[in-house]
Amino acid sequence: MNAIPFESGRKLDCVSLGRLCIDLNANEIHRPMEETRTFTKYLGGSPANITVAMSRLGLKTGFIGRVSDDQFGRYIIQYLKDQSISTDNVVIDRTGSVTGLAFTEILSPTDCSILMYRDNAADLKLEPNDVCEQTIANSKALLISGTALAKSPSREAVFLALDYAKKHNVVVIFDIDYRPYTWASQDEIGIYCRLVAEKSHVIIGGREEFDLMETVTDPDQINDDHTARTWFSHVAQIVVVKHGGDGSITFTRDGGQWKGRTFPNEVVKTFGAGDAFAGAFIYGLMQGWPIERCQEYGAAGASIVVGSHSCSDAMPTVEQIETHMKKYE
Amino acid sequence: MNAIPFESGRKLDCVSLGRLCIDLNANEIHRPMEETRTFTKYLGGSPANITVAMSRLGLKTGFIGRVSDDQFGRYIIQYLKDQSISTDNVVIDRTGSVTGLAFTEILSPTDCSILMYRDNAADLKLEPNDVCEQTIANSKALLISGTALAKSPSREAVFLALDYAKKHNVVVIFDIDYRPYTWASQDEIGIYCRLVAEKSHVIIGGREEFDLMETVTDPDQINDDHTARTWFSHVAQIVVVKHGGDGSITFTRDGGQWKGRTFPNEVVKTFGAGDAFAGAFIYGLMQGWPIERCQEYGAAGASIVVGSHSCSDAMPTVEQIETHMKKYE
Amino acid sequence: MNAIPFESGRKLDCVSLGRLCIDLNANEIHRPMEETRTFTKYLGGSPANITVAMSRLGLKTGFIGRVSDDQFGRYIIQYLKDQSISTDNVVIDRTGSVTGLAFTEILSPTDCSILMYRDNAADLKLEPNDVCEQTIANSKALLISGTALAKSPSREAVFLALDYAKKHNVVVIFDIDYRPYTWASQDEIGIYCRLVAEKSHVIIGGREEFDLMETVTDPDQINDDHTARTWFSHVAQIVVVKHGGDGSITFTRDGGQWKGRTFPNEVVKTFGAGDAFAGAFIYGLMQGWPIERCQEYGAAGASIVVGSHSCSDAMPTVEQIETHMKKYE
Amino acid sequence: MNAIPFESGRKLDCVSLGRLCIDLNANEIHRPMEETRTFTKYLGGSPANITVAMSRLGLKTGFIGRVSDDQFGRYIIQYLKDQSISTDNVVIDRTGSVTGLAFTEILSPTDCSILMYRDNAADLKLEPNDVCEQTIANSKALLISGTALAKSPSREAVFLALDYAKKHNVVVIFDIDYRPYTWASQDEIGIYCRLVAEKSHVIIGGREEFDLMETVTDPDQINDDHTARTWFSHVAQIVVVKHGGDGSITFTRDGGQWKGRTFPNEVVKTFGAGDAFAGAFIYGLMQGWPIERCQEYGAAGASIVVGSHSCSDAMPTVEQIETHMKKYE
Repeated sequence: MNAIPFESGRKLDCVSLGRLCIDLNANEIHRPMEETRTFTKYLGGSPANITVAMSRLGLKTGFIGRVSDDQFGRYIIQYLKDQSISTDNVVIDRTGSVTGLAFTEILSPTDCSILMYRDNAADLKLEPNDVCEQTIANSKALLISGTALAKSPSREAVFLALDYAKKHNVVVIFDIDYRPYTWASQDEIGIYCRLVAEKSHVIIGGREEFDLMETVTDPDQINDDHTARTWFSHVAQIVVVKHGGDGSITFTRDGGQWKGRTFPNEVVKTFGAGDAFAGAFIYGLMQGWPIERCQEYGAAGASIVVGSHSCSDAMPTVEQIETHMKKYE
Repeated sequence: MNAIPFESGRKLDCVSLGRLCIDLNANEIHRPMEETRTFTKYLGGSPANITVAMSRLGLKTGFIGRVSDDQFGRYIIQYLKDQSISTDNVVIDRTGSVTGLAFTEILSPTDCSILMYRDNAADLKLEPNDVCEQTIANSKALLISGTALAKSPSREAVFLALDYAKKHNVVVIFDIDYRPYTWASQDEIGIYCRLVAEKSHVIIGGREEFDLMETVTDPDQINDDHTARTWFSHVAQIVVVKHGGDGSITFTRDGGQWKGRTFPNEVVKTFGAGDAFAGAFIYGLMQGWPIERCQEYGAAGASIVVGSHSCSDAMPTVEQIETHMKKYE
Repeated sequence: MNAIPFESGRKLDCVSLGRLCIDLNANEIHRPMEETRTFTKYLGGSPANITVAMSRLGLKTGFIGRVSDDQFGRYIIQYLKDQSISTDNVVIDRTGSVTGLAFTEILSPTDCSILMYRDNAADLKLEPNDVCEQTIANSKALLISGTALAKSPSREAVFLALDYAKKHNVVVIFDIDYRPYTWASQDEIGIYCRLVAEKSHVIIGGREEFDLMETVTDPDQINDDHTARTWFSHVAQIVVVKHGGDGSITFTRDGGQWKGRTFPNEVVKTFGAGDAFAGAFIYGLMQGWPIERCQEYGAAGASIVVGSHSCSDAMPTVEQIETHMKKYE
Repeated sequence: MNAIPFESGRKLDCVSLGRLCIDLNANEIHRPMEETRTFTKYLGGSPANITVAMSRLGLKTGFIGRVSDDQFGRYIIQYLKDQSISTDNVVIDRTGSVTGLAFTEILSPTDCSILMYRDNAADLKLEPNDVCEQTIANSKALLISGTALAKSPSREAVFLALDYAKKHNVVVIFDIDYRPYTWASQDEIGIYCRLVAEKSHVIIGGREEFDLMETVTDPDQINDDHTARTWFSHVAQIVVVKHGGDGSITFTRDGGQWKGRTFPNEVVKTFGAGDAFAGAFIYGLMQGWPIERCQEYGAAGASIVVGSHSCSDAMPTVEQIETHMKKYE
């Protein structure tokens, strides 16, 4: 058993707050994007991908966000609905914003890059007033994506959502999801991610992402044990530190520590692996599974997604994960 | 003969200043963009299209502009080079800008729309210091696109280019090319387009575009004759007023007036017709042709482009135009 | 005895962070500012005034802030030095900012208003990197002024200062000091002030200021008892709710509650009363006095300042306060 | 006779467009501003000063501008009215702007500096829509101050005012009035001042101010003769080049050239000399006086103002100028 006390009797298992974007994936892969002729459109954005992953696995999910008032915004809402994700708290932005874009370049299975369009992005226009207290009160868990902190007013919307979560005893899951754009300064990153991490029960991030938060006041303490101690001194129950290809380590407040495995697969691109992991890991937590099993499920999900052309669209079902796990038993 | 006294003995026939963008044209056409799955990439932007048109017809051309420091910027420079357009005065922007995007939606041959990405666009970062006096001095004509006036510092780059053009006796061609975005206010549009039109020898625009300039001080004078008189009172030699499907009327300073014809064709989309017209019309002017023939060439070029999937890539050669014209003699 | 456990053996009693401004007080008072001919210059800004008050009473104080690189910035630094306030952590801004100004209009003793100049103000340019960890580590208390939260990067400097204060066991005193300008939106005020109040040991504010923080999530709970309970559920030890002319109520974590008195005086203007109160109240806390005596000292200080033409310059010494209190015994 | 053909039968002799500010002059002079205790308030801003000068001399004047919606804005309107300057086209800004401030420091008669507050200044919020065509149509002359070009939307308001001036045959007087703040880039200064100078009949500026406009395209031609030739090739009739203490040279389109004298006086500060000169010089032009007499009147006005504590308030009447001139005959 894991230690997370999710409230029972709530309409939604998890509501996510943050980025809703479009991925435009190069169809002619394994070459520079200069030579790409055509692109295929998918829903994108880390919290969007995680939410699709959770929904595919059977969780009842919803989203708190803003989309642009155009064809891309309408596509996103329709896609979420098609995935059985509640869009009741997805607001249409009327300020002339656009949907964030990620053009992906797949030079080789291990050499991928992204050309981002994040100026005037609709998702960062989310305002505190957009956040519906009742939506949060109706959820067992609230997933916060760190990129939602990159700019006002989305940043303030996060803090208000956290206030509502506390008031209604909602478990807060923080995916640090650091991206080196949009933020006005390096200082802001650590400072705001810390303020959220202090209020989070589950924190998921890469080693470098934890460093961004912790080196502000403790520049000499860069290690996983210190990370775990730091956040357990606040309200955290579970801390997951991802080490890329080396797998992840999960710490629990009661002193537990688990190193996760990885599954082999024919890699098309590395994008989306972290989101698939997070979606399946959270799914496991909500089933009350032991950490080992949550991690294994996450790793299997990641393995499936790196073998596909898309992120969101490739998120596996329970059946697909089970099949994949059996293959590598 | 037309009255434009182009200087002889210059390296370039025409150098263009303004937008260098990417068109992402829906491959699944005649449906809403929400349902489009894939997009094909082309060079885009009105002055870019006109310059490709002129180059395909055999003029020696160049471009003054800024492109983003990424895969799209590099693609644009390569495409221009492949079209024999000089990129000596195309500057790579280092401020983190992006290439402007136009996602085209082709609902039906007559119902097309564009989803624009113009925030932080590289082309509007063109600075006065970028403009190379020698490039302009080496050109017979300078083509100014009105969208370059939408924002500083590109706006100031235009005015400096006009100063250089005057100093070196370069013919100024002004394509008003009004787009209802980027401009900070409605007031600015008329005011800045007027300042450029006052210094231009050839002015090309739609009826509504001339209205934007002229109703500021003469709100009651919306007609082509008044338009011609207005600009001939400055330095203009030729004024072309486009009336959409009704063809265009060309006025010359000496009192001449010609109504242009249109060619039938199977229309895929309406985008790019105006650019094809302008490119072929200017080509005619530079051959010293009578206005009638310039207009006919322009109309034939437009007819070819509306029958194709792209704008830039569909610009015809002399041979293609001649063949097209014979077909409808 | 009050419950605040100040560390001993520190160089400074209190270091303040926030606004350093200039007051320009009308010399021809009791008339509209339109008719004022001359103004007299003083140091201004709530935390600046409080720090002068503390220093006059004998506390060892310092300031963390930014001043403009001009005559006003240099005047401020010199004035602080003259008041024995350490300026070691006062940084000169090199970005072209200006000193904030407050032109005071004294229509009558009870009808005063301020004409503020806060655009591009140097104090709000304070960056996290400016905050010297050692300065905070050397202090018993850190005074945060809420206006420092109004804008980035000063806002982030506050959060970093709070991290350092926690690391080094420094008592945090939060003067909400809400001003209805500079803030980008109403939402931000409550959200950021809450984040600071959650980390503060002593919180001082007016009833309306507490409302700004508390009505975000508890719109129906506007009363002093709820206020006290709210902040005692975090780390607060003392909460002072000011009710203007009706005096203030001080709550302590152990359940204590004291209503403060006010002293009569011939009122010239109402500005500065709150700052004088805060300065003398904190002085009392640092002497380990009972709350009653702290409040009485604060009230006497306020009474003296409302009878003077300036705020900072009128802050009383211990002797002046004692004399004033005897007069009204 | 000078060559300027002012229309007769107009309500106003001259309407000015640009800055309306407040000067706060140090009362304790001949010391650094750090040591100044009190300041005296005056109307300020170059075009405001010139307009007061013209009005004191008996011209019928008006102003086109924006003032802040506060005590300073109301003071400015009242002061203009008291000087018989029409405020019919002075608009109250409702966007939260402030009145520009100039704190003057008078270290010695020859060493003066200004501490400017120009952020969010009301005068630069002047919009094209504010400019009343009828006001301009009712005026013989329109005075444009170059600082009004420093920023949008005031910049566009200038160009619209110039369009109206041309339509109604109003003489345009351009005081370059360059100030090294507010402008976004060095490039913009020359480019926009050129566009105005090309449309102006009388141009007044210092040698360095003309350089700013002319070195853009002619970097090697820095001399007064070239300056005169440059602007006479457009519509200019009179060009005045000021050489500080060495007096000014006035050129006329017909080839005339006059070197102006200066009057001695006990100098308090140098501020305002140029404005006093311009006001009296324009007064002379409107009387149809020979250039020599215009210059002499201008020099006498300047001499009087440098001997006073203020700029606007010290502008002389005809009687004062005549008396001053007699003193130095």
